[in-house]
Amino acid sequence: MILPAGENEYISSSELAELVGLNPTRIRKDLSYFGDFGVRGVGYRVESLVEKIRSILKLSGGQKVAVVGAGRLGTAISAYPGFVIYGFEIAAVFDSSKSRVGKKIGTLVIEDSSKLVSSICKKGIKIGIIAVPAKAAQETADKLVEAGVKGIMNLSPCYLNLPGRVKVLRNDIAMELGALPYYM
Amino acid sequence: MILPAGENEYISSSELAELVGLNPTRIRKDLSYFGDFGVRGVGYRVESLVEKIRSILKLSGGQKVAVVGAGRLGTAISAYPGFVIYGFEIAAVFDSSKSRVGKKIGTLVIEDSSKLVSSICKKGIKIGIIAVPAKAAQETADKLVEAGVKGIMNLSPCYLNLPGRVKVLRNDIAMELGALPYYM
Repeated sequence: MILPAGENEYISSSELAELVGLNPTRIRKDLSYFGDFGVRGVGYRVESLVEKIRSILKLSGGQKVAVVGAGRLGTAISAYPGFVIYGFEIAAVFDSSKSRVGKKIGTLVIEDSSKLVSSICKKGIKIGIIAVPAKAAQETADKLVEAGVKGIMNLSPCYLNLPGRVKVLRNDIAMELGALPYYM
Repeated sequence: MILPAGENEYISSSELAELVGLNPTRIRKDLSYFGDFGVRGVGYRVESLVEKIRSILKLSGGQKVAVVGAGRLGTAISAYPGFVIYGFEIAAVFDSSKSRVGKKIGTLVIEDSSKLVSSICKKGIKIGIIAVPAKAAQETADKLVEAGVKGIMNLSPCYLNLPGRVKVLRNDIAMELGALPYYM
């Protein structure tokens, strides 16, 4: 959620509830679980609430992210400005195609996938986004894990077989869309 | 899930369970809820199981989809071959920029957003994907609903305020990624 920072100093649980479509009691209860940082009858200071939620979700630090695959989707992801809000920085982009390596996406230079492990190690990147064709996804994931990545978002349409210590989120847009017709 | 069609005629609940990481009893129970289409001790005929699941999820028909926004993300989505598996066909792409209208993405010609309502009506499209900047998302959604769209996937980083009869899924990749650090 993006709070309108600067606009108001305080936000009430009712206003929050309306913004996110939940009920105010639920919001007060959930937030109180993490400490007592609301003011009764007034609400929450927006700035410190944002800070607190960031810290709860471990989104405070500038987390570096590597994108593997600089096709249409990988390029769109790498150029997407929305990651900053969540404290992410796209710090590397890789592709295996000679014709793409060396080209730029914004200020990022596309690196050769064969250097993936060493580059990610050196940069201390812990999060990877997989945007390669399905047949190359498992191999890419294995290399990310070898490089020390602890969390992966998989945009390829396939399951990944990885050690339990690595957290994997799958985001296949076609599969997500597949949920729509059932509810229509 | 993509079943390896043609490879085996039958698939057991144990094999299915391993493919999707659930337990076999759960799978048998869930599927039996929709009818008795497994053979005890043998499993499910792959072809009819796929057909049955498609029909349960209302993914049998060739559902037409409109993509609004032909920037990097919209272009990537429009060109993505993965929708076919779920019975979707990208049938129209729109953009408001004169420099994009008329250009092609594969065999699709980018249409002018000002013609969105009439074009979607004529083509009988019921599903829309919003890939425009956040500030244009609500207006786009309103026009999609006016055109008769019943289900929307919103890729823009914002909430949409729409009538309850319209099913909206949000898929903001940055927000999704935001869930990773908590579990790492």
